Amino acid sequence: MIYLDNSATTPLDSEASKELINYSCLNFFNPSAIYGKALDVKKDIESAKQTIAKSLGASFNDNIIFTASATEANNMAIMGAYRKNFGKMLFTMGEHPSVYNVALNLKNLGVCVEFINLQPNGEVDYNDLESKMSENVSFISVMLCSNETGAINDLKRIYELKSKYCPNAIFHSDGVQGYGKIKVNVDYFGVDLFTISGHKIFGPKGIGALYVKDKTKLNPIIYGGGQEYALRSGTENVASIMALKKAVENFGNLNENYSHVQQCFNAFLDNIDKNNVKINSFGSPYVLSLSFLGVNGETLVHMMESKNVYISRGSACSSKKAGNRILENMGLTPEEILGSVRISFSKNTTLEEAISAGNILNNCYKELKEKLK
Amino acid sequence: MIYLDNSATTPLDSEASKELINYSCLNFFNPSAIYGKALDVKKDIESAKQTIAKSLGASFNDNIIFTASATEANNMAIMGAYRKNFGKMLFTMGEHPSVYNVALNLKNLGVCVEFINLQPNGEVDYNDLESKMSENVSFISVMLCSNETGAINDLKRIYELKSKYCPNAIFHSDGVQGYGKIKVNVDYFGVDLFTISGHKIFGPKGIGALYVKDKTKLNPIIYGGGQEYALRSGTENVASIMALKKAVENFGNLNENYSHVQQCFNAFLDNIDKNNVKINSFGSPYVLSLSFLGVNGETLVHMMESKNVYISRGSACSSKKAGNRILENMGLTPEEILGSVRISFSKNTTLEEAISAGNILNNCYKELKEKLK
Repeated sequence: MIYLDNSATTPLDSEASKELINYSCLNFFNPSAIYGKALDVKKDIESAKQTIAKSLGASFNDNIIFTASATEANNMAIMGAYRKNFGKMLFTMGEHPSVYNVALNLKNLGVCVEFINLQPNGEVDYNDLESKMSENVSFISVMLCSNETGAINDLKRIYELKSKYCPNAIFHSDGVQGYGKIKVNVDYFGVDLFTISGHKIFGPKGIGALYVKDKTKLNPIIYGGGQEYALRSGTENVASIMALKKAVENFGNLNENYSHVQQCFNAFLDNIDKNNVKINSFGSPYVLSLSFLGVNGETLVHMMESKNVYISRGSACSSKKAGNRILENMGLTPEEILGSVRISFSKNTTLEEAISAGNILNNCYKELKEKLK
Repeated sequence: MIYLDNSATTPLDSEASKELINYSCLNFFNPSAIYGKALDVKKDIESAKQTIAKSLGASFNDNIIFTASATEANNMAIMGAYRKNFGKMLFTMGEHPSVYNVALNLKNLGVCVEFINLQPNGEVDYNDLESKMSENVSFISVMLCSNETGAINDLKRIYELKSKYCPNAIFHSDGVQGYGKIKVNVDYFGVDLFTISGHKIFGPKGIGALYVKDKTKLNPIIYGGGQEYALRSGTENVASIMALKKAVENFGNLNENYSHVQQCFNAFLDNIDKNNVKINSFGSPYVLSLSFLGVNGETLVHMMESKNVYISRGSACSSKKAGNRILENMGLTPEEILGSVRISFSKNTTLEEAISAGNILNNCYKELKEKLK
C-alpha cells in the first residue's frame, strides 16, 4: 500500500501507541481525583502542555487547552471569543468547514461576518483583507496552511495589518495542516488563538488543542466539572494527550522532513505528463492538488485504490459534497474542479513511493482518457 | 493496590485496548474518505452504534451520536434541545456538574430553569417534580443513578408524570453511572435522550455517546465537516469508538455482576463499626457513600491511600470544591458532609478486596478519632 492521504489522517506513531496503552490500562486514574496517583497523572498532562507550548513557541503564561478535535478547538476559538455587541468577524474563503460553517452559523444568527477571497495561488487576498479591516473588526481567522492546496498564508503580514487597523481584534489561526510540518511560532505569527490536531501528525484521533495567548478572553462552549481552567469540562483524555505529547516529541527535524517531502513532491510531479493537467499547489510540499482535465477526479481516486495507492478527492471533510468552495474561489473552472485530486505526503513517505505513485497516477489518467475517447 | 474509585474512572478492558491499537495504527483511515478501506471503517463505526443501541434497548430508527465525553453528550442534549421561546426546563439538584452547570448557565441567560429537590435517600423528590410540571415544560433532565450516592431515580415514573402534564417535553437522562451496571431500556424508561460514558465501564476516556430517540429535534453545538448526521462534526474517534464497542460487548451478565457487587458492598459495610457513621447510599451497590462523624473525609482518603486503597471524597469532578451540593440537598449536616467519603465498586472488585478495604477504612477512622481526642 502507498498511502498518500496524510492530510486526511495519519497512523499513530508506534511509541505514541505505547503511551496510549500505558495511560489507558495502567496510569488510568482520573486526574481530578485527590490521591497521589491521580495528581501524578495531572502533572503528566501539564508536562504534555509544556511540550506542545514549546513546540509552538508559546510564552510562559500562554495556555494549551486540550479538546476532542481541531474541529472543537476551532469552534471554541470562534464561539468562545464571540460575545454580545462584538464587532465584525473576518474569515477567509479557504477555511476548513470547522471554521467556515461556524462563521456561516454566526452570520445566519445576525452577526456581522465577512469572508475574504483567495488569490489564484490559494493564499488569502491580502488586499481584500485590508479593504475589509477597520477598527470595528473584533475577530480575524486565517488558516496557516490550506488542507486543499497547501497554500501558506503569511500570518505575520496579517498581524501587521491587524496592528494597523484593529489592534484589539482577536487573531485566530487554524494551524492543523502546518503544525509539525512547517516552522510554527505563535509569537512571530502574532496570533492569539491557534488550533492543532493530533491525528494529522501521527498522534491519535479524538484529540486536538487550542493555544490561547495569555489574557485572551474566551468563554467555554462546554460546561461541567470545570476542567482545563473551566474552559473545557469533561474528564481529560489522558491517554490521547500523552500519546499526542509523544507524537510531538517524535516530530524529528522539521527542516529535514520538509526537504525530504519537497523531494517526494517534485519526484511525484516529474512523473506526471503536464499536458491537460493543472497544478493547484504553490505552498507546502505536503499537499499537492492537481486538476486532470476531461475526467472525474473521483474515478481517478478509485482507479488508484485498485492499484493500492491511496489519494483523495480533496479534503476528507468535504469529499462527499458537490463542488469545492475553495478551488472555486481560487478561480478554477468547473472542469478543473471536477478533475481535481489531492495527494498528501508525510515525512514517512519514501521517494520510491512518490515516484511509483506519480507513475501510476499518470497511467491511470491516460487509461481513463483513452476509455472516454 | 485495592482500587475502589470506579465511579471516577476505570482502567481500559484489555480486549478493548487491542481494538484501540488496531484502529489507531492499522485501520487508521479517515472514515470520511471515499476509498474502500475508509468505507470499511465507516461501517465498523455503524456496527459499534448498533451494539450500543442494542445494549440500550433502542429501536431501529433511534440514533447514537458519539461525543468526546459524557460531559459533551450532556451539553449537547441540553443546549442542542434548547431553542428560542422554549418552555420551562426542569433539572434535579442531584445532577452531575455537566448537567447542573449547563442549566445554571441557561438560567443566567434568562431561560426559565427550575431545580427539583432530592429526598433524604438521594432520589429526586417526585412530589416536588410533579408540583413543577405543567404543559409549559419543554425539557426534563433526571439522571438514572447518582454518582455521589448511587441513588436510582425511577425514570418510568417520571415518564408517566411527563405524559400526564407535558407529553411533548423532551426527556433526557444522564445514564453514566447506571449504564453497564443496572438494566437500561430507553424505551421502558421513556427517555428521548440518554447519555453514556466510555471510561466508567472499562472503555476509553475521551469517548461518550448520546442516544437520540427518533424524531427528537436537536441542534449541533459543534459545527464543521458534518459528521454524525451534522450533529457532531470532527473526524470520528474511530479507535475509541471501537474500543467502547468491545467494552460493551464485554459487560458480561449484568445481573450476576450486580449480585457480586452487592456482596462486595455488604461485606465492606459489615466491616465498618456503625457507631458515628452515617450511610448515605440506598440505591445501586456500585456506589457507597458514608459519613464518618467528627473527621474530615479528605484525611481518610489520604490515610487509605497510604495503605494502597483508593477511595474518594465524592465525585472526582466536585472533589476539589468546598461543600457538596448533592449531599447538602439530601439534608446532610455540615459535619456529615465534611466526614463523607465515596467507595465505588466494579464487577472486577473481589470479595476479599471489599472485606480488606472495609477493615482498613474502619481502622483508619478509629486511628484518626484517637488522634483527634
